[in-house]
Amino acid sequence: MPRTSSTRAPGGAVTLQQVATAAGVSLATASRVLHGSGGRRVAEALAERVTAAASELRYVAHAPAQSLARSRSTVVGVLVHDIADPYFAAIAAGAMDVAREYDLMVLVANTFRDPGLERDYLARLRAQRARAVLLAGSAFVGEPFAEEVAAFAESGGRVAAIGAHGTGIDTVEPDQYGGGRLIAEHLVGLGHREIGVITGPAGLATVAQRLAGFTSVVAGPRLVHADFTREGGRAATHELLGRHPELTAVFALNDLMAAGALAALRELGRPVPEQVSVAGFDDLPVATDLTPALTTVRLQLADIGARAMRLLLDDEPGGRLVPAPAELVVRDSTGQASTLH
Amino acid sequence: MPRTSSTRAPGGAVTLQQVATAAGVSLATASRVLHGSGGRRVAEALAERVTAAASELRYVAHAPAQSLARSRSTVVGVLVHDIADPYFAAIAAGAMDVAREYDLMVLVANTFRDPGLERDYLARLRAQRARAVLLAGSAFVGEPFAEEVAAFAESGGRVAAIGAHGTGIDTVEPDQYGGGRLIAEHLVGLGHREIGVITGPAGLATVAQRLAGFTSVVAGPRLVHADFTREGGRAATHELLGRHPELTAVFALNDLMAAGALAALRELGRPVPEQVSVAGFDDLPVATDLTPALTTVRLQLADIGARAMRLLLDDEPGGRLVPAPAELVVRDSTGQASTLH
Repeated sequence: MPRTSSTRAPGGAVTLQQVATAAGVSLATASRVLHGSGGRRVAEALAERVTAAASELRYVAHAPAQSLARSRSTVVGVLVHDIADPYFAAIAAGAMDVAREYDLMVLVANTFRDPGLERDYLARLRAQRARAVLLAGSAFVGEPFAEEVAAFAESGGRVAAIGAHGTGIDTVEPDQYGGGRLIAEHLVGLGHREIGVITGPAGLATVAQRLAGFTSVVAGPRLVHADFTREGGRAATHELLGRHPELTAVFALNDLMAAGALAALRELGRPVPEQVSVAGFDDLPVATDLTPALTTVRLQLADIGARAMRLLLDDEPGGRLVPAPAELVVRDSTGQASTLH
Repeated sequence: MPRTSSTRAPGGAVTLQQVATAAGVSLATASRVLHGSGGRRVAEALAERVTAAASELRYVAHAPAQSLARSRSTVVGVLVHDIADPYFAAIAAGAMDVAREYDLMVLVANTFRDPGLERDYLARLRAQRARAVLLAGSAFVGEPFAEEVAAFAESGGRVAAIGAHGTGIDTVEPDQYGGGRLIAEHLVGLGHREIGVITGPAGLATVAQRLAGFTSVVAGPRLVHADFTREGGRAATHELLGRHPELTAVFALNDLMAAGALAALRELGRPVPEQVSVAGFDDLPVATDLTPALTTVRLQLADIGARAMRLLLDDEPGGRLVPAPAELVVRDSTGQASTLH
């Protein structure tokens, strides 16, 4: 395995190409090992040669990306599932505020929860030499996304994500699991035993995490799937209460669906919280204006978007994980379990 | 003035360059006359030569843009003031739905109501050879924007706007003025004479038009400026009622501010609508979930975004004006004027 001190760039930072040369492997293989990108597996012996060379040369992941970044465009991409959903609108706005401080332009793309479209946008932003991309939509469970991310990073751009999207990416991780737990503990503490859950689109990591947190406290709740909208929540509540009139509480996995749940319970003549308690998730601005005001989990969405954008732009080495806490906000839509049942 | 039939392109469509050549003027001058772009004025004699040549050659505005467009990228830009404002999020989502039908990518840019930033984005989307741009944010009163728009169109891209932005652009024009009138007539019909208005950011055409419609019926209302947010509306209502306790109705120029007005009136212990009526504008989804449910003006925001995107993509000649009606939606937040005063 050829290795000389002259593989060290005069300017200081060691490049991925230098590591690949030192290890006697292709650039793609070195990237697969060091950036944790997906696709074909790398044989263990080969992987060890790469990590040994990287360590020998004191290679810092993303350093080449950083040096390249200086010659890139002033555009930063933000990929969201649905910009009409206030959850994503708030995250995007927080990210945009920070980008503006750095005098960068933000281009937001809507992926309609379509993993294929998400990859397309990422490839296109790479072709446009976008300086950085923020993956702000929840990942899809089991979705192989790492290859596109690695290609973007190798081309010199930075990538960060909100919620886990793969190894090696700067990530702000909202505590979706902990938030689900908080609601479950709150409802159980109020004496609720018969609880229905209105979940969001199957396959989204956010949905799986919120639900896992909840079911870690309350096993086997009644479940209905809905899309993440007010109308989805309204229809699901009618379905849930129609099938299970004994429920004393409904947990909607986001505030929009909780607003629909409150509307449905009004239509059913079931007073909240006297007969049925309702809880949401996100603490959107609308939560305080609902009647009754909504008990929910607060995520600091604009702050999450802002922190993720800072990770993209601060020129520090990547791979960081920044947790964003979830906080229970108790308002008027939850109360003691009704003893009528 | 040289003019021969050979200036006609063999393929059919007459180009702007051919008109300019026939009229003996520069391309920029021809564009200024025929695309209505701003900047320097064109002497009347020169302008007449250009229009005569265009008529002689049967020049169709935007035809060269259309032929060029075929070689452009599959990116469409949408410029909004603030994507965190559900008004713009709904418009953008409607536009995105249509773009997806055409298999185009949409990049949304936030201009923070900064005319300079708006022009920057437009120039940048031109440099990236974006296929089309939708100016979805309200224009600024008196803002000279036409030159950037003309440059984009001349480079082969299409431009459309929501609300008037200048001559020669395809425009969807929501009836902001008519909506303001509808609210004024509704409140006057309920016997209100002392009406306060919470207006949005000064200088925005949307604000000016809504207010003009209102004051065409109710002269000299009490005015307070606020930004277009719930908190802005809340603070403005406290200010308004503090200075003018005799008011029996408050018209907030958008629903977010109306939500804040309802919160402020709750804090002040002034029942709605028994003591004070409240009306908003936009009919955001939140309007039905407020307590009391909000009387407002409905604009079909997603439909407006969708129609504007169709104008951009349908390959018809530009310069069209599509009105989008405003509709009064009476709910529970307005009632007969209190006779206590």
